[in-house]
Amino acid sequence: MPILPDPTDGVAVRPDLLRSWTAALVGSVGTPDDIAADVAEILVAADRRGIPSHGTARLPNYLALVSAGVMDPAARPVAEVERAALVRYDARNGWGHHACRVATDRAIEMARTAGSAFVVLRNSNHYGIAGWYALRAAAAGMIGMSLSNTSPLVAPTRARVSMLGTNPIAVAAPAGRFGALCLDMATSTIPRGRIEVAARRGENLVEGWAIDAEGRPALTPEAALEGALMPLGGGEATAGYKGYGLALVVDMLTAVLAGATSGPSVIGLFSTEAPSDLGQAFWVVDPAALDGSAETFEQRLEALCADLITAPTAPGAPDRVLIPGEPEAAAERLAERRGVVIDGRHHAALVALADAAALPFPEVGPVEPAASPSFASS
Amino acid sequence: MPILPDPTDGVAVRPDLLRSWTAALVGSVGTPDDIAADVAEILVAADRRGIPSHGTARLPNYLALVSAGVMDPAARPVAEVERAALVRYDARNGWGHHACRVATDRAIEMARTAGSAFVVLRNSNHYGIAGWYALRAAAAGMIGMSLSNTSPLVAPTRARVSMLGTNPIAVAAPAGRFGALCLDMATSTIPRGRIEVAARRGENLVEGWAIDAEGRPALTPEAALEGALMPLGGGEATAGYKGYGLALVVDMLTAVLAGATSGPSVIGLFSTEAPSDLGQAFWVVDPAALDGSAETFEQRLEALCADLITAPTAPGAPDRVLIPGEPEAAAERLAERRGVVIDGRHHAALVALADAAALPFPEVGPVEPAASPSFASS
Repeated sequence: MPILPDPTDGVAVRPDLLRSWTAALVGSVGTPDDIAADVAEILVAADRRGIPSHGTARLPNYLALVSAGVMDPAARPVAEVERAALVRYDARNGWGHHACRVATDRAIEMARTAGSAFVVLRNSNHYGIAGWYALRAAAAGMIGMSLSNTSPLVAPTRARVSMLGTNPIAVAAPAGRFGALCLDMATSTIPRGRIEVAARRGENLVEGWAIDAEGRPALTPEAALEGALMPLGGGEATAGYKGYGLALVVDMLTAVLAGATSGPSVIGLFSTEAPSDLGQAFWVVDPAALDGSAETFEQRLEALCADLITAPTAPGAPDRVLIPGEPEAAAERLAERRGVVIDGRHHAALVALADAAALPFPEVGPVEPAASPSFASS
Repeated sequence: MPILPDPTDGVAVRPDLLRSWTAALVGSVGTPDDIAADVAEILVAADRRGIPSHGTARLPNYLALVSAGVMDPAARPVAEVERAALVRYDARNGWGHHACRVATDRAIEMARTAGSAFVVLRNSNHYGIAGWYALRAAAAGMIGMSLSNTSPLVAPTRARVSMLGTNPIAVAAPAGRFGALCLDMATSTIPRGRIEVAARRGENLVEGWAIDAEGRPALTPEAALEGALMPLGGGEATAGYKGYGLALVVDMLTAVLAGATSGPSVIGLFSTEAPSDLGQAFWVVDPAALDGSAETFEQRLEALCADLITAPTAPGAPDRVLIPGEPEAAAERLAERRGVVIDGRHHAALVALADAAALPFPEVGPVEPAASPSFASS
C-alpha cells in the first residue's frame, strides 16, 4: 500500500481520543458497548495505518445505514454450522467489524486445536480494512487470511461493465524484526478512491487502472468514473484475467460459499435501499502445530524477508525492496507520535456528526511535518 | 490461460497411449507402478489442457534428476505431523506429482470430517500443473487450492534480480454446467516460457512482463532472458507490488511453513546440483458441511458464472467473458478428439528417451486442424 502525502488541509487528532469518541458515537445509535469498541478499534486502525478511505471517514455512511433501518446496530453473529475446522455465522445484518472480529477469534481458537480453521459469514456488512483481521491472527502467532466480497466496481476481462467487487485479500503472519508481514490488497489494480484523488488533483490515469463506459482504456478520471475498474494485471496482454480470477475466487470463498449475495447482485457501496448481505471469510493456520512453537516458523519467515530486502534495486527505485505491510506499519508508528491526520472534508463530516449527537469531537491540532519513512535499516 | 495456436511442426498422439508410455518410461528408472501412474496422469493432463510446458516435454529433465541421484524415484511421502485439519508430509525427495496427489487426497478425506483441511509438504520436487490438484478436490465436490514455491525467476517490486519463483496459485470448485471453475495462475505476469516463445517468433515484449539485467523494462526477449520476470501487475504504478506480495505469500504458505527451501535459496529449475527441496500446500473446504449437500453451493456458483458471461463486452473482445478454466477444458475436449498435439522438438526428445529405454513411442499422426473454441453457447 503506497503512503499518500499529507493532505494540505489536514488536522491531527490523538488516536486514543478518536477511538473513544468513535465508540461513543457508534454507541449513541443503539450499538452495545462491546460491539462499539470493536467498530471503533477497526475504523481507527485504518486511519492509523494510512488507509483513511476505510476508517472514520465512513462513519456518516455507516450511520446512514442504521438510520435507514437497513443495518441492525445491536445484532450479534450466530454460529449456524460448526465443524472442527469450518464454521458459518449468520451475522444477522449487524456491524461487519464486530461479526468479523468474533469470527476471526473463533478461527484462531479452533486452529489451536485443529491446526487450521476456516470461518465464513453471511448476512454481513462492510468490515473496514481486510488486514486488521489477518493481523489479529498474526498477533496470536498464526497465519491469518481475510476475504470479503464487496459492491460491483470491477469489469471482468473482456467485459465493459462492473460485475465484481474490489474483493480484498489480506494475509498476515509474524515476521520477527519485520513485525508482521501483512499483504492487504484489493484484487483490482487500484481502489476507486485513487480515481477520485486523481480527479481532485487534475491528473491523468495510468493505463491498466480503469476502462470507460464503452470498455476502452480510461485515461482521465472523468472517463473512469463513468466506466469500471480493471482487475489486477490490467488488460488481457498483461494478464488481467488473473486479477479477475482472484476477484471471482474471493466472491466464491465468501458470498457463494456462505450463502450471501454475490457478484453483480450486490447492492451499491453504502446503499440504503436494502441490507448489504455481504460475505466474509477468515482462514487461520497455526504454525506451532507443525514445529512445536510459533518461533521456528517466525524465524524462517524473518530470514526470507531479510534476504528479500538485500536485493539490488532497479534504477529509480525510491527505496529498498519492501516487505508487505511495512508502509502501513510506518504510518501506524507516525500516527502514534503525531496523531492521526484527517483531511478537512473528513474532519468537517465528523464534526457534523459530533454536533448532531452532542458528543464533542476531540481536540485537533496542526499536522507536524513528517519525512517519508526510510526502510533502509530494518 | 490463453490457448496457443497449434505448432507448425506438431504431431498428434492419443492421450491414453501417451499416458501408458509415460508410466512405462517413468517405471523404467525405478519408480513403483502406482507412483509412475500418478506421474503419467498429471504430466499428460498438462499436455491435454494445453499447458505443454508442464507436461511430458519435461520428462528429459525429470529423468536427469533421477540419473544424477538428486531425486529418489521410489520414495513415498511420510506424514510427520497430524492434526484434525493440518498435516505435514516429508515428501522424502520423491516425485512431487505422487506426493502431492497423496497430500491432496488426504486433505479431501480430512475435509469430509473437519469441514476444511490444510496439508503441506517439504523436501518435495516439481509437481507439474498446480490446477490438477485443485481440480481433484472439485471432482470430489469440494473447493481446492494448490500452491507451490519454485525456482527464483521473479524480481520483487523495486529489485532488479530474481528473488522469488513464479509461485503458482490454483483454486478450483464444481460449477454446474461450467464444469469446474479452475483458476490456475503463476503470480508473475507471464511464465518464462512466454519469453522463449517470443524469442523464437522474433516478437517484442509487452511492458509489464519482464525487466532487463539493469532493472529497466525489457522490451525484447533477449533483454528479458538476461533479466527477470515481473510480478503480476507489472511495475509499481500498476500495482505490481500486489503480485510480488502474492508470490511471497505462496512461498510463506508452502516452503516457509513446511520447512523447505524458500525464496532466492531455491536452486535453479531442474538443476541437478542438489535435491530441489520445494514446498507445496493444499487446502480443501467441503461446502457440503455447510449446506448438507454439495449441490447447493454448486448451484450458487453456477448462477454467478451464468451472470458473469452475460456481461456486455468491450470493443475488440474476441469472445464473451470466460470463466477461469474454460480455455483449458476446451483444450482437453479437443485433445480427447484429435489427440494431444506435441511440437517437433518435444516429439524428438520423447523419441530419444523411448529409444534409450527400448520403450517404443506411441504412433503419432498429423494434426487435424481445429477452429478456435467458441464459448458463446455455454
